[in-house]
Amino acid sequence: MKNITALSLAGIASAILLLLPSTSIAQTKTLNVVVTPLSEKVLSGPTTLAKQGSFFVGGRDIESSTLSTLPAYAQSGTITVDQMYVRYQIPLQAKPNSVVMIHGCCLTGKTWESTPDGRIGWDEYFVKRGYPTYVIDQSGRGRSAVNASAMNAAKMGKESPENLPVVFAASHESAWTIFRFGSEYPKVYDGQKFPIAAQNSLWQQMVADWLFSMPTPNPTIPNLSQLSKQLRKTVLISHSQSGIYPFQTAQLSNEGIAGIIAVEPSACPAADGDLTPYIKMPIMIMYGDYMEISPRWAPRLKACRAFVEKVNQAGGKVELLLLPEVGITGNSHMIMQDSNSIQIADILGSWIEERIKN
Amino acid sequence: MKNITALSLAGIASAILLLLPSTSIAQTKTLNVVVTPLSEKVLSGPTTLAKQGSFFVGGRDIESSTLSTLPAYAQSGTITVDQMYVRYQIPLQAKPNSVVMIHGCCLTGKTWESTPDGRIGWDEYFVKRGYPTYVIDQSGRGRSAVNASAMNAAKMGKESPENLPVVFAASHESAWTIFRFGSEYPKVYDGQKFPIAAQNSLWQQMVADWLFSMPTPNPTIPNLSQLSKQLRKTVLISHSQSGIYPFQTAQLSNEGIAGIIAVEPSACPAADGDLTPYIKMPIMIMYGDYMEISPRWAPRLKACRAFVEKVNQAGGKVELLLLPEVGITGNSHMIMQDSNSIQIADILGSWIEERIKN
Repeated sequence: MKNITALSLAGIASAILLLLPSTSIAQTKTLNVVVTPLSEKVLSGPTTLAKQGSFFVGGRDIESSTLSTLPAYAQSGTITVDQMYVRYQIPLQAKPNSVVMIHGCCLTGKTWESTPDGRIGWDEYFVKRGYPTYVIDQSGRGRSAVNASAMNAAKMGKESPENLPVVFAASHESAWTIFRFGSEYPKVYDGQKFPIAAQNSLWQQMVADWLFSMPTPNPTIPNLSQLSKQLRKTVLISHSQSGIYPFQTAQLSNEGIAGIIAVEPSACPAADGDLTPYIKMPIMIMYGDYMEISPRWAPRLKACRAFVEKVNQAGGKVELLLLPEVGITGNSHMIMQDSNSIQIADILGSWIEERIKN
Repeated sequence: MKNITALSLAGIASAILLLLPSTSIAQTKTLNVVVTPLSEKVLSGPTTLAKQGSFFVGGRDIESSTLSTLPAYAQSGTITVDQMYVRYQIPLQAKPNSVVMIHGCCLTGKTWESTPDGRIGWDEYFVKRGYPTYVIDQSGRGRSAVNASAMNAAKMGKESPENLPVVFAASHESAWTIFRFGSEYPKVYDGQKFPIAAQNSLWQQMVADWLFSMPTPNPTIPNLSQLSKQLRKTVLISHSQSGIYPFQTAQLSNEGIAGIIAVEPSACPAADGDLTPYIKMPIMIMYGDYMEISPRWAPRLKACRAFVEKVNQAGGKVELLLLPEVGITGNSHMIMQDSNSIQIADILGSWIEERIKN
């Protein structure tokens, strides 16, 4: 197990030429990536880490006089907020590029770990493929603290309850449609690849979301910028609500960002905005199945297509991969947890290796 | 790197006989554990994992009509709450006992990962020592969801703001004293071993705490019980606020619990309560320095001493290790992050290996 990289590439390089019919979109393209799968031996074998750990990026100290309504803890004092939790694993024989995994709405970094049905997560997959892998909890989510002062201010009568933070939870029923498991709960789209039988393990992952109570810009963006500068040649991999963040991070500075993979972004940059940061950077935007029959997702896909067209007209090299167009059908919004998650990770790993030149 | 266990034991077994004077308590005892340190080679070398991943234990579905105040997310529906996040790493050549690490107040599982000054955390240490290692986020903390419905109920005017959940944040200034860095912020006790220069990295770890808004018993306790039954021969390692949880878990059932290590528990079981679950189980209760000069901690130590005395009178084998009594001085409440954290982990690892017979 000394050379993970060599083992990673031991699989036979093979273009994916699946010809299954899509539920909604016929295969119209050939995948433009020569896919080098990770071998079964590497996937199921041990993983050797040169280093692992966790740290925080960013954060600011604030003074508050409504920290506590309990006598055991002082009402007034200093707390730190807006920082971003980062857990990392660095394999032996690491590749020069690292990856940063950025979860979406109502979720945490858990998104990328073991799938609901207990298979290997993309965090571990990319480590096994040789990538130093950094998984974050967005500022204000999971292990990254929120500022609860406003709750106590309302509880103490110092603020009107109308001014309470906007905090929302996506119900199972809402998430069902948003995640494109089916047209409405509990109907399931034909050919669905999300492990529906293990849905409870997804519901356990979901958390209350303070997104709309965070400062503007969301601190996750400058924190990702700082992290990218530390990592130097990193690929930012976003999902869903965080889809726009790598682009906004690149607007702050391209420094340290080697490429962007947006998995099912809920938004792309505006097609008529400043496209300069995206011209020279390899960018992959990927969506699963059932996009055009989803009233929520169809317009998002359309807007992303417009963005891609504009950037490429200006000399960019953005790829939009709609999986059914290359014959891969049945993927939900939670692609990293779908039954073919490893097949998709093989595509993304190969894409990085082919497109990003250091 | 095939045999981590063999390497783990490569260090020379040596009883710790440090003779530094304690700030507050003179050395009065000899450490009753033959300490087998992990070698520097293992500590700084690679780590090979047979398996890793994460999952949730427990949780229940609830219906709510105040999930959201935003049009994009439904007000009504089902969410899952009270579940407990668990991340695990299993080394090659794993020992028969596993360890579960349970963080304390205002913190998450991050407690046990890299120290504020960037040294190896106890999570990784125990993996390197050969233990399947499980790090949790308590129910309602970190990656384990809280129920935010009551916030929205108050925001919508459906509930009085007085009924808002009790949520508190420990300020830097409060935590300073609670964590025994010094008598008051920013004074530092003589000989302090917490890495004070890296304090900002501790403040970044702290989160708002919903502890007093959780159901009774705290769902973390039945969740730990379920986890212990899955793991079968596990040692529950608690810290601070969670110190009572392994004992309460053993009250539910001893099944799966091979031993308890309470690091700086804020409470022990009542000395006049039912002590039956604790009679046959190896139990270690450990405290750092400055206990007797802390108005918060001195009575807690006294109460734990009374518990230990009663259990041992009844035939138990509970050990109370006050580090200054064996000549190890300067430890704060955050022992796993102190500059001698590896020395202490060596003691705890050796204690498990000597006391727990499977």
